[in-house]
This record gives sequence, C-alpha cells and structure tokens, in this order.
Amino acid sequence: MSKDTRWQTALTSIAPNKILVRGYPLDEMMGRLTFGEAAYLLLMGELPSPAIGRMFDAILVSSLDHGVTPPSTLAARNVATTGAPLKDSVSAGVLAFGPHHGGDIESCMRYLDSGLSLMRSGRTLQQAAETLVEESIRANDIPPGFGHRIHSKDPRAARLFQMALELELEGEHVRLLRAIEQVIGSKSAIFGRPLPVNVDGAIAAVTADLGFAYELGNAVFLISRLPGLIAHAHEERMRQPAMRQIDPKDHDYDGARERRLPERRK
Amino acid sequence: MSKDTRWQTALTSIAPNKILVRGYPLDEMMGRLTFGEAAYLLLMGELPSPAIGRMFDAILVSSLDHGVTPPSTLAARNVATTGAPLKDSVSAGVLAFGPHHGGDIESCMRYLDSGLSLMRSGRTLQQAAETLVEESIRANDIPPGFGHRIHSKDPRAARLFQMALELELEGEHVRLLRAIEQVIGSKSAIFGRPLPVNVDGAIAAVTADLGFAYELGNAVFLISRLPGLIAHAHEERMRQPAMRQIDPKDHDYDGARERRLPERRK
Amino acid sequence: MSKDTRWQTALTSIAPNKILVRGYPLDEMMGRLTFGEAAYLLLMGELPSPAIGRMFDAILVSSLDHGVTPPSTLAARNVATTGAPLKDSVSAGVLAFGPHHGGDIESCMRYLDSGLSLMRSGRTLQQAAETLVEESIRANDIPPGFGHRIHSKDPRAARLFQMALELELEGEHVRLLRAIEQVIGSKSAIFGRPLPVNVDGAIAAVTADLGFAYELGNAVFLISRLPGLIAHAHEERMRQPAMRQIDPKDHDYDGARERRLPERRK
Amino acid sequence: MSKDTRWQTALTSIAPNKILVRGYPLDEMMGRLTFGEAAYLLLMGELPSPAIGRMFDAILVSSLDHGVTPPSTLAARNVATTGAPLKDSVSAGVLAFGPHHGGDIESCMRYLDSGLSLMRSGRTLQQAAETLVEESIRANDIPPGFGHRIHSKDPRAARLFQMALELELEGEHVRLLRAIEQVIGSKSAIFGRPLPVNVDGAIAAVTADLGFAYELGNAVFLISRLPGLIAHAHEERMRQPAMRQIDPKDHDYDGARERRLPERRK
Repeated sequence: MSKDTRWQTALTSIAPNKILVRGYPLDEMMGRLTFGEAAYLLLMGELPSPAIGRMFDAILVSSLDHGVTPPSTLAARNVATTGAPLKDSVSAGVLAFGPHHGGDIESCMRYLDSGLSLMRSGRTLQQAAETLVEESIRANDIPPGFGHRIHSKDPRAARLFQMALELELEGEHVRLLRAIEQVIGSKSAIFGRPLPVNVDGAIAAVTADLGFAYELGNAVFLISRLPGLIAHAHEERMRQPAMRQIDPKDHDYDGARERRLPERRK
Repeated sequence: MSKDTRWQTALTSIAPNKILVRGYPLDEMMGRLTFGEAAYLLLMGELPSPAIGRMFDAILVSSLDHGVTPPSTLAARNVATTGAPLKDSVSAGVLAFGPHHGGDIESCMRYLDSGLSLMRSGRTLQQAAETLVEESIRANDIPPGFGHRIHSKDPRAARLFQMALELELEGEHVRLLRAIEQVIGSKSAIFGRPLPVNVDGAIAAVTADLGFAYELGNAVFLISRLPGLIAHAHEERMRQPAMRQIDPKDHDYDGARERRLPERRK
Repeated sequence: MSKDTRWQTALTSIAPNKILVRGYPLDEMMGRLTFGEAAYLLLMGELPSPAIGRMFDAILVSSLDHGVTPPSTLAARNVATTGAPLKDSVSAGVLAFGPHHGGDIESCMRYLDSGLSLMRSGRTLQQAAETLVEESIRANDIPPGFGHRIHSKDPRAARLFQMALELELEGEHVRLLRAIEQVIGSKSAIFGRPLPVNVDGAIAAVTADLGFAYELGNAVFLISRLPGLIAHAHEERMRQPAMRQIDPKDHDYDGARERRLPERRK
Repeated sequence: MSKDTRWQTALTSIAPNKILVRGYPLDEMMGRLTFGEAAYLLLMGELPSPAIGRMFDAILVSSLDHGVTPPSTLAARNVATTGAPLKDSVSAGVLAFGPHHGGDIESCMRYLDSGLSLMRSGRTLQQAAETLVEESIRANDIPPGFGHRIHSKDPRAARLFQMALELELEGEHVRLLRAIEQVIGSKSAIFGRPLPVNVDGAIAAVTADLGFAYELGNAVFLISRLPGLIAHAHEERMRQPAMRQIDPKDHDYDGARERRLPERRK
C-alpha cells in the first residue's frame, strides 16, 4: 500500500503492553490524574495546570444531572422502559443534546467571539455587550446562554464564575458574558422576563477562556451529563414497570434529604 | 390526578435556584469533589471515602482511549466523516460497546459472583477458581475478563490491582480474579495462547468489590470511554477529508513523543 | 495484501454505472418491484413470488404507526423537541425497539420453534400448544405474541392471518400460533385477563413461515415502524414549541375523520 | 388538567380494536396499499394517485443498498462486530446519514427552490440554471446533487427521470435540475471532473415536485436505506468473526451473478 494512502492520528499510541495518551503512559496517569485532568489532556493535548484541572473537574460536575424533566433524560428513560441495554438509553439521551439543549454552549461561544471581534475593532467591553444585546433584540432572539425555565439565578453559573475568579482563570469571555448580563438586566422590560445567565452560558465562557474549540465546548457538556443519563436509565429499570407511559410531570422525589458536604471536603 | 399514578425518583431534586444531587447542593459539590467522586455519589447514593474516590477516578482514567482500531472508535469516525454533529458520532460509538466490547465487564462480574457462590457453599478460593476455569474449558469459552489482542500483560489491569492493594480496597472479587489468573496460567497449553487478565476483568473485579450493580459496571466503562470517542470524532473532522473510507490499518501516530508526568503529579 | 485477509459480501456489487442487488440491476428493479418486494429480495436473497411479495408489503404496512404513546415514538419526539436533526429522532426511536417493544417478535418465533420441535418428537399440534402454554403459566410469563394494552382483538393480526390463508401462505407456525390462542382462551381464568394474539405474534408466525431468521423478524418491524417515527418527529417540529415537556396522556387527535379506501384500491 | 395544556396530533388515532392512519383503517390498508403507498399517506396526509404511488415505491427502491463502502454501512458493521443487537447497528447507520451522505437531498431541494425563486422574479429556466452554477463556482462548491465517487452516469438517476416523464410527474424541479446538468456539462473544464447528476439529486428533484418538505426529502432516503443497513449488519454477524477490524477496501463480492428480472415483472 502506498505511503500516501496512510492517515495520521495524534491522540494515543498503542504498542504491546504500552498505551501512551498524548505521550503519557496511561497506567502512570491512573491514580495521579483525576478523570477531569486526564480528559482535559486527551482533548487539549497538554496537561492542565492544577488550577485548570480543578476548574475543569468543576465544569464537569456542574451538569451532572438535572432531574427527570429534561428531554435527554426522558429519551433515555423511554428507551429503558422497553428493556433495551443501558448503553442504548445513554445513546438516545446523547442524541437529545440538540441545538436547544446543550447546543446553547456552542452558540454562546460563537456569540461571545463575535463580541470580542468588535472589541478588537475598537469598541469597549460595554459597547460590545450593548451591540450584541441590541442585535438579539432586533432578531427577536434570547441571547444564547441566558434564561432558564426554573432558576431565576442559576447557582451553577454563580459557582463557576466564583471559581474562575479565585483560581485566576477569568478571561475576556467571562468578562464579556458578565457585561452582557448587566445590559440584559437593564432591559428586562424589553425581554418581558428576567434572563439570568445560565449554566450553559457559564460553561461557554469558561471553556472559551480555557481555549476550547466550539465543538468541544458542547462535548464537555456530553461528558458531564453522562452519569445522569446512566443513573436515570438504571433507576427506571430498577424501580418502574416495563413499558410504562412516562409522564414528566407526575413524579415525586423520595431520595436523601438536603445535607451538607463533610468539613474535610470543603 | 390520583396519587397512585405518581412515580418516584431518588436521584436529584430541583427547585428554583436549588439543585440537590442525592441531597447535596450541586454548586457546593463543584470545586470540592472531583468528577469521579461526584459521579460515584450520583450512581451509588453516598459520597465515596477519599480512597474509593481516588480508586474510582483511576478506573475512569483506565479506559480513556485505546487508539483508532476499536470498533467503537471506528463507528464514531465513520459518522464524523459524513459531517454529522459530534454528538451523533459519540452516540454511534456508545452503541458499539456491545457484549464483546466493554460488555465483558458485566459478564466477568457475573462469572466472579458464581465463583463466590461456590465459596459460600464450602469450596476454597483455589477450588472455586479451578471449577470456573474448568467450566470455561468445557464450554470452549475464554473466561470473561481474560485475553487481549495486543497486550500480553495489560498495564492498566496491573495498575488497578496495585492501587486496590495500596488503598486497602482489594476484596474477594479481586482475590478470586487473581486466583483464576493463576489457574489459567497453569493451563496455557489447553487455551493455546496466553490469556492475561485484561482491563475489563480488572474493572469488573474492582467495581464488584466496591458494590456496583452488574449494569453499572458497564456504565463505568461508558463514562471512561467518552472523552476518547469525542477526541477521535473531533480529530476526524479537523484533520481528514469528508466522506473518506476509513481503513483501520493504514494509520500512523504523529503526536507527542513518550514523556513522563512531572514530579508534582506523582 | 495477502489473499486470506480479504472478506466476502453477497449482497450488492458496485461497478462504475452498474449496481447489482443480489445480481439484479437496481435501476431495472425500480418501477418493477415494490419497495417491499425489493427489501425481501435484499434480505432473503431471492425474488418473492407475487403472493409472498403482497404478503410482505402487508406485513410492512401492519406496524406503520401506533400513535403517540409507544416509548419509541416518545423517544423520537423528545429528541425532536431539542432541535436535533430528524435522523437523530429516528435513531433514538429505533433504540427503543427493545425486548418488550418489537423484540417480542423474535421471542415469539423462538417460542413457536420450540413447539414445532415437540411436534417433530411426536406430539400433536394440540399437545404442543398445551405444553407451551403450561410452561408459560408455570414460569408466570405471558406467552410471547399475546396480549395488548388497548386491543382485545388486534385487527392487524386478524388481517395478516386472513391474507396468509387467502394467499395460501399459512404454514405450521401460523397454525401453531392459532392453536396456542385457543388454549390460552380456554385458560383465561388463569391469566386473569384476555390475551388475544397481537400484531407482533402474527408477524412472528407469518415471517417464520416465510423462512426469516429470528433476527430478521425484528428487522421487518424496524422497517415497518420507520415512517411512523419520521412522521412523529416531523410533526413535533412543525406543530409544537421547542423544549416542551411531552406528556403522553394529554393529547387529542385532530386529523382526518374516519374514511374508507376508494373502491379501486379494494 | 386544564384544557390548554393538551396537545394535538393528526397522524394516527387509536381506539380499542381500531387503528386509523390519516383516517383510514390500518387493517384495511394491509394488502391493498404497498408499503410505499402507505408510507406516502402517513407522511403527506393523503393517498397517492397510482402514478405517484408507483413513483414513490421506485424512489424507495433507488437507495436500497450501495454495497459495503459507504460510511453508514461501515458504522452499522462496526457496531455489529461487537455483538450488539441489530437495532443498534441500524441506529448507528442512520446517524451516519449526515450532511455529506444523504443530507445532500435537502441541500439540493433548497438549491432548486432558490432557482425557482429566480424564475418567479423573471429569469428563464436557462438563466436560473446558469446563475446557480455560477454561484457554486464562485463559492468553490460542487452543486448539491451532482458528482459521484464511482459512477460517471448514475443509473438510478436516469431511471427516476425516465419514470417521472412516463408517469407525467415531471415538474419544475426536475426540469431545473436537468437544465443545471446541461450547464455543468458545458463547464466541466472549470470543475476539473465530470459531475453527473447523482441519485440524491434525482430524489431531491422528484420529491420536491411531489411536494415533500425539505426535512422529509432526507427522511425518504432513511426509509430507503434501512433494508441495506439491516442486511449488512445481519451478514456481518452471520459470516464474520466478532471484533474484527473492518477494512472497507479488502472485500470481494461472492453473491449471485448478474441476472435479469423475469418477464412477468417487466
């Protein structure tokens, strides 16, 4: 076979008894890197600093689960109720991360970058934020990364911003997102309802500041949500009859009561 | 709507501005738990001890990626080459974790439990291991969790066993698996080729010792492999022409050279 | 590359400007075979007789759609509501054809074959049917292919049996299924509710009489259900707001009133 | 539950022992409509005329299978080799019908409609065709629906056009596509290679003339390709060892020799 039909990969090299991920022995990574740090290495090509590693693990934790009502969870549970293997439920759940559900991360990254272009052309942060919001209003769109069905102040977004500040990882995307939040707040009469920054917006800004490609911003969300899809599919099979009609409204929570992390975890 | 049509969930409770996963505020978990620890909490219902948390992160790291040749990677790349969204590649890759590819974890957990039943009926560890191997030989089966296309000694399995020992998490499933490994080694003439314990077998034994349900043993593998599926789908789109015919043999590795983790990570 | 690494396929051969499916030019098939006949050729290797072709088209029509409540439809709609591409909805719907939803066809084919084995060992049709039903009762199982959430007499099953009779395609699987139906009817007190033969059972018996492999019995159902999945995903996107919570109970039918096929179609 | 939370569907109504698809009893449709005619009814809302029914069946036959090399087939086979259920292979194959593989149908429908808009604004057919091709050349794009890896004259496209003509179903989309084909042929020096109209282009033009929505143009292709995905996944499991590395180039065809349809089918 001629040389020119060969293709290249830069991710992982496999030889007998030796697996190198981005050059590092996989067995050496085990126990020394968290899964978040190892995933960052694989996706970005280099080890994260300790601060970035901690930030990335926090991003992955942020979307771990959002209860039974999101369409992704319902798609996974509807597959589970037919007796299909767990991986089939997970796969159907992943397919539900469409443009309106997780895909918002990529849209928000692009939105912020269009604002940063304005700044490179001479606008101030404030002017860029105002221009973006005005464009959304003219197009009759909700700015991507803003608004939530349930939360008026998304606790996950607040925590991500706080961590970015404390870990000195706040960059121009986060600053622009927060400026946009201010502008939107001053125009709530126009939008007709409060539009707080949501967890998708916060992930978009923080991952963009970390240098993630648009497509990988969404991918981070997929990793984050996987344990939730698994937990719901498993619970469906363990606790519910097969072939039931799943109504997203008629459910009650019967799990552990509210509790706090032990001190050693803080 | 009558009370009896309602259904229950014990995973996550959602109220305005408050998300509790297994009772813990999600925003409080961020930055305080690794993603591995948080996923363990969601799947198992309680926080892991620090030792279990570290073990679980290591399990997730163990199957991060295995290069371009597994069918799951090829399924993901074949979807990526058509221009489909990244989540579609991931979904197709997840579907390829069938009985022969990842599903081995569940089979091995069941195999080990049948051996533990023998021990509860009075057999010794050694007798149970011999009985299981003899049954596999009679059925003309490779014992689940053993053998590898490429590795004669799977470095990931060795590392998981070492960590289980050091963290004092080694239990009866790991001990039985290792006894089976000895028995198989003494009968390599019968099997016709070396059958080292593989990473699936090691994950099966360690997660079984941690108390995971069979179905969730496989699920751990799904979480672990997701960054690899994402990285391959993304690389396919970034580096290769669309609609190419992907030959799993004609590739070269052109990534980072072998390197070691910095001292602070050890 | 050595000869022995090559692999074989017997389905379709492709050469420039010539596509042969099972040896027949695809362009010659167009307009001369119905899609049902062409699909039969591809799956079974030979052209169907006109009677078999008509039977196979009827089987495909039988499961075209079953309204909004099946889990497959709900999985497809939950993906559609997120703005994902139509093929993603279809894919999620296909994943929901698990063991309890369509998979019943394969189970019923195996069940009938175990009864035919009894007959080859000397039992009469009646004895075989009684043995099978007694085994199901002992195992506390509903016999596969029987019972329906909504229908007490499944009109699709009745029509398939009538056509098999008229087209002289009724074979031993259909006869055994009908004998089982009689036995079950005589024991309705034991089962506690009527258990009519359902469309899955009828498809299982008829496709088994046509010589389909177990796995392909289910596959026929997949083909049949695809237009329904597509129609529901499309309707969801055209008529409903994005990201809605889909309740399978709160819907009304607002389509065409009951009507009859024109005479020329009868 | 208040009236306003209810939602509507116009596809299928289900009552005990009565299933109406677009108002027609499903059991009455069986044996009287081909699967193609029944699928057309479900998707479009009304029965097709006999000519349209025959055309639609031919469209479905046109993409039945295209051998082992398309990415969709390879995705399905890579899932099959892991021992996963057949529906999982089908689902992965469906996911591979991305923008470059099947999605071309939708692109071509939009392309033709932009040309028809030019005509409604006063351009002639010839001028509209020239404008479209010039725009593609300026954008350095291959016009959607043109060009094929293997075929210099796609026999399926030719047959679809012939049938549209004979059945008097040729409309403005087909006429514009053929005019574009002429223009492209006169500029083959610019494109650097022959760009015959392909089967995607022909399906796009014919389904657009039949009044299909863009999204449903692609959907027709999904239905058409399903038997091929099923046949390949089934063949993979029946004839090949599990967990093999599937090379799309190293295969031979060992099926039926070229043969002709019997006279009664012509």
